[in-house]
Amino acid sequence: MAESPRRAAGRRLQLPLLCLLLQGATAILFAVFVRYNHETDAALWHWGNHSNADNEFYFRYPSFQDVHVMVFVGFGFLMAFLQRYGFSSLGFTFLLAAFALQWSTLIQGFLHTRHGSHICVGVESMINADFCAGAVLISFGAVLGKAGPAQLLLLALLETLLFGVNEFVLLSLLGVKDAGGSMTIHTFGAYFGLVLSRVLYRPQLEKSKHRQGSVYHSDLFAMIGTIFLWVFWPSFNSAPTTLGDGQHRTVLHTYYSLTASTLSTFALSALVGEHGRLDMVHIQNAALAGGVVVGTAGEMMLTPFGALAAGFLAGTVSTLGYKFFTPILEAKFKVQDTCGVHNLHGMPGVLGALLGVLVARLATHEAYGEGLDSVFPLIAAGQRTATSQAMHQLFGLLVTLMFASVGGGLGGLLLRLPFLDSPPDSQCYEDRVYWEVPGELEDEAQGPLRVEEPVTQA
Amino acid sequence: MAESPRRAAGRRLQLPLLCLLLQGATAILFAVFVRYNHETDAALWHWGNHSNADNEFYFRYPSFQDVHVMVFVGFGFLMAFLQRYGFSSLGFTFLLAAFALQWSTLIQGFLHTRHGSHICVGVESMINADFCAGAVLISFGAVLGKAGPAQLLLLALLETLLFGVNEFVLLSLLGVKDAGGSMTIHTFGAYFGLVLSRVLYRPQLEKSKHRQGSVYHSDLFAMIGTIFLWVFWPSFNSAPTTLGDGQHRTVLHTYYSLTASTLSTFALSALVGEHGRLDMVHIQNAALAGGVVVGTAGEMMLTPFGALAAGFLAGTVSTLGYKFFTPILEAKFKVQDTCGVHNLHGMPGVLGALLGVLVARLATHEAYGEGLDSVFPLIAAGQRTATSQAMHQLFGLLVTLMFASVGGGLGGLLLRLPFLDSPPDSQCYEDRVYWEVPGELEDEAQGPLRVEEPVTQA
Amino acid sequence: MAESPRRAAGRRLQLPLLCLLLQGATAILFAVFVRYNHETDAALWHWGNHSNADNEFYFRYPSFQDVHVMVFVGFGFLMAFLQRYGFSSLGFTFLLAAFALQWSTLIQGFLHTRHGSHICVGVESMINADFCAGAVLISFGAVLGKAGPAQLLLLALLETLLFGVNEFVLLSLLGVKDAGGSMTIHTFGAYFGLVLSRVLYRPQLEKSKHRQGSVYHSDLFAMIGTIFLWVFWPSFNSAPTTLGDGQHRTVLHTYYSLTASTLSTFALSALVGEHGRLDMVHIQNAALAGGVVVGTAGEMMLTPFGALAAGFLAGTVSTLGYKFFTPILEAKFKVQDTCGVHNLHGMPGVLGALLGVLVARLATHEAYGEGLDSVFPLIAAGQRTATSQAMHQLFGLLVTLMFASVGGGLGGLLLRLPFLDSPPDSQCYEDRVYWEVPGELEDEAQGPLRVEEPVTQA
Repeated sequence: MAESPRRAAGRRLQLPLLCLLLQGATAILFAVFVRYNHETDAALWHWGNHSNADNEFYFRYPSFQDVHVMVFVGFGFLMAFLQRYGFSSLGFTFLLAAFALQWSTLIQGFLHTRHGSHICVGVESMINADFCAGAVLISFGAVLGKAGPAQLLLLALLETLLFGVNEFVLLSLLGVKDAGGSMTIHTFGAYFGLVLSRVLYRPQLEKSKHRQGSVYHSDLFAMIGTIFLWVFWPSFNSAPTTLGDGQHRTVLHTYYSLTASTLSTFALSALVGEHGRLDMVHIQNAALAGGVVVGTAGEMMLTPFGALAAGFLAGTVSTLGYKFFTPILEAKFKVQDTCGVHNLHGMPGVLGALLGVLVARLATHEAYGEGLDSVFPLIAAGQRTATSQAMHQLFGLLVTLMFASVGGGLGGLLLRLPFLDSPPDSQCYEDRVYWEVPGELEDEAQGPLRVEEPVTQA
Repeated sequence: MAESPRRAAGRRLQLPLLCLLLQGATAILFAVFVRYNHETDAALWHWGNHSNADNEFYFRYPSFQDVHVMVFVGFGFLMAFLQRYGFSSLGFTFLLAAFALQWSTLIQGFLHTRHGSHICVGVESMINADFCAGAVLISFGAVLGKAGPAQLLLLALLETLLFGVNEFVLLSLLGVKDAGGSMTIHTFGAYFGLVLSRVLYRPQLEKSKHRQGSVYHSDLFAMIGTIFLWVFWPSFNSAPTTLGDGQHRTVLHTYYSLTASTLSTFALSALVGEHGRLDMVHIQNAALAGGVVVGTAGEMMLTPFGALAAGFLAGTVSTLGYKFFTPILEAKFKVQDTCGVHNLHGMPGVLGALLGVLVARLATHEAYGEGLDSVFPLIAAGQRTATSQAMHQLFGLLVTLMFASVGGGLGGLLLRLPFLDSPPDSQCYEDRVYWEVPGELEDEAQGPLRVEEPVTQA
Repeated sequence: MAESPRRAAGRRLQLPLLCLLLQGATAILFAVFVRYNHETDAALWHWGNHSNADNEFYFRYPSFQDVHVMVFVGFGFLMAFLQRYGFSSLGFTFLLAAFALQWSTLIQGFLHTRHGSHICVGVESMINADFCAGAVLISFGAVLGKAGPAQLLLLALLETLLFGVNEFVLLSLLGVKDAGGSMTIHTFGAYFGLVLSRVLYRPQLEKSKHRQGSVYHSDLFAMIGTIFLWVFWPSFNSAPTTLGDGQHRTVLHTYYSLTASTLSTFALSALVGEHGRLDMVHIQNAALAGGVVVGTAGEMMLTPFGALAAGFLAGTVSTLGYKFFTPILEAKFKVQDTCGVHNLHGMPGVLGALLGVLVARLATHEAYGEGLDSVFPLIAAGQRTATSQAMHQLFGLLVTLMFASVGGGLGGLLLRLPFLDSPPDSQCYEDRVYWEVPGELEDEAQGPLRVEEPVTQA
């Protein structure tokens, strides 16, 4: 039974009140804890009589900007492939990422970069905050169209916290290397979202089936996201690595890995397609798997050939995943993965973590020379062997899968709280539930859209 | 009475002839006055035996490129939200900005950066020229859909001149700080456009009302503009600041301010929306107000908390402005503000100027250390107190409002010259007046569009 | 007579098999030949005890990223103007460029940058590979809609090879200067494509005439390409020049040249348009001619005025080319140039080469000072006079035209191999031949599209 309009309207206050509450809370925490670091503070920077050219800003800001474009333009448009969910895909990406940037500044600051009782911020903390926003958006992709914005904000609140903890355990406690986040971002975000989607399983989702696909133009909008992600992914993987050869080498690997995943995606998509036709879903997503798969090993001495081989494998696995595994995931495992994050971020992320295990295992003083200290400081310092580093890398993957699963489960329970506003099964993938949608132009082509008062889950 | 087709066709020569005339004039002035500066001239640069790494290019070009994207992609697509005016929004943005870059190189060069009788150009003059183009496009937003391209070019001619004079008075005569242009760009551009729109008031504009809104896809195109503006705004505010901590700090403030204006925009939009629904107009515009509001104070020691608070306030004011003030502006003040530049640039610009007054008043030697000389050189040199600097900042705002108002009024009189080609009231917001529009695909969905020969205002 | 579905389906294996074959081959060649250069190798970089700030990465990566955006976003969306060929325009751009990056790393490496038996890669080789991809995409533009993806991959295989040889002859053997590639990229790519299009002439192409134009939204998508190309073109021309004043000056010239070509395009488009209306095709393409025309002379002492004059001329020639010469090219010369690459790349490229001849001829020790060694090392070393350099530049243009023509001819013969999958005359400019196209939304507006099994040329 549909609830009364008055009660429904009351639930609509959840989003604005939550926004105001969260913004108020982060603002107070910023006032108490967040300070300039020595490169953004006028007095501290000029104290040391540095050359302006030494400011970290000039080494990392161009990469940061590319990452920023990926998070907001890339993820936003990539998820705008749904025919009636473009406003929500772009708008909620915008909202979730904006909140995650603030909140993860606090979480990551408390855990990693605290100086005394203060969190000191600059371009590096901005990159890390954007990375966390990326993980949140990956999870969002798994439940795209099936959760309301207030639910999603709560989810971001929880996920940012767990992201920070997992990252802390891996990078600070275990000494794992994962610059481009095959584990901390892609594996974590994907499995968090998949478990979440499992908990939120909707048996009646076929009521919204007619809105679940794309239309011609929405696929072109999605390609804006795909191509910007593809082009800027070298900056993503290299943004937080050590300067000099580290950033340079990571860019090179990501560049070549992506070309190989693109070629394998086209090959496989045509091979498995009806009449040899290509599928836009594959091209939009699987072609990016080459960026995910070198997220861990990208800063290591993977070699250009290694990058090609890894990208090829990732594109292949990802395309086959869309074709064969996604239907099984829904039918057998009751995971409704709207964007196929398992194929783009999940499997390639795990592959990337394993590639990191392999390449770390092969690390030698000869291959890295004096650069070993930048890439594997614990090996260089004699505190670990390459084998031990590889084992730590593998353990990091398991920890990530554990945190992601527990977090996704908790997130699912949180989002099932009955008073939270959630779209009914018949109104999934529909902008009109949350947005004023202009005109009726689009509707005429698709049959009438119900303009009835949207109801929430009982 | 409609004029004869022949006379109408004659009027269509205004655009090409004006383009050719203006290009010819600027080319001659370039030949006479414009020269390389010491960083773009082969002989001058190599004279000093500089390290190539010292070339200003490497410190400012990445930021410049982001600004360039904002001006052409950001403004262009943001204004493409109208259902039948995408060609004009993108095309006239392109035309006006291209002309403004040339012309403002000359104007700003004569006023600010002249060396002897020559204007010396490099990446800094390119940034400044793009800033002027930004102001012209803000004013364009206020009259979007209601002025022809020849009118707009004349407007750019006038506005660039007054922009340069106002900037000269503020920065060079009054010693005002305004790196990101809360005053010189946003307040100036907005009030210039609003007064212009008042002078060009069209009582019969409801004849074009059916074209004044968006359609689903045009809102997605507009989001391309919004998101690129949002992502690159940190580069906008920091592009011309002092190097080192100055640029770094400005980026940080703008980044956080924008996250807060995004959260407040979503909160307020849902609060004031019917059934708690979000409005795309708010998200597309008000979410950007956080960039405008830290345009002056961004390089000062605003603190991260201050950036959040300012952004939150700006997003709130801007959203409420779209909801409640824009209708009043049209009904009571006869200002037809197509893009709502008053809400995005006007009020947040004034708020940003006032924030600059406040933060300048609070400047101390202790907070800025040796960096005081970069941010407030006159205070550092003992020529001004912080209070005096604050008063100068406030006076700068008043001067800007004065120049903008007088300029907008003059611009309105200029555009009312009866021989200038202007779209009739029934043909506003319509690409077909100025462009060959392909096919009839779109029209069928919206009822027949008149293909009659467009007429001009009597 | 249409061939049997079984045989048609068999031909559809050509794309995936070719992708796999080519990827396998380049991967093996990478394993054997490609190595890190001294700036991407951990051991080599740390050997020399360099400052990280000296890594070439920090001088070229921001420009590289802009070039990368141009190749994938710019070319991709610019070619998405066709109403039913957006998937193919974006997808095949993606595929061809990804392959060209790998393959041209090998070709250019063997010819230019081999160290012993190894090809050493880093950001400079990445820029050069992207440049080659640009040339391939220019040629693609000439046959857009008329060739299948397997044909196009073979074409990229051939063209990348000849591009490398031509570049080697010009830059290494003849000592020609052509940083932004007026000759090596634009002239080469355009005339290669035009000769190719001549060989592939389809007398019955009017069967697909109804799909050859744009629709309103596809023109807006194309403007994404145009504007990103326009904004980032300064980075394209300056990406491979000498550091310091060289990059800075090249950026400046390109920036101003593009403003002038934009103004002249608007002027000429309105002058020659019916009723003085502007044509989107001109704005999308001819406004970019200013970037092409300073591709050779951009790093020389062209002067800001020279840049304006060159851009103005290029925009004029290009617009007039679209209006008057393209129809003649098809009717008289049997060249069906889908994107008008003759107008955007061909004529402006030749003009740019001739401008390079002129500006090289005018080079003096006085004008370049110590910087002469960077721009014209052979003149600085006394091995050539300015006149001799100019003659070499001119000869470079002739060599380029020769290689392009022979290459395009060979490419045409290759693509006419009867067993290659090619769209029939009635199925040109149609995504459905190669892609799963969602829904029938678009079709309803344009009349039913045949869903029959696509056939291949007999």
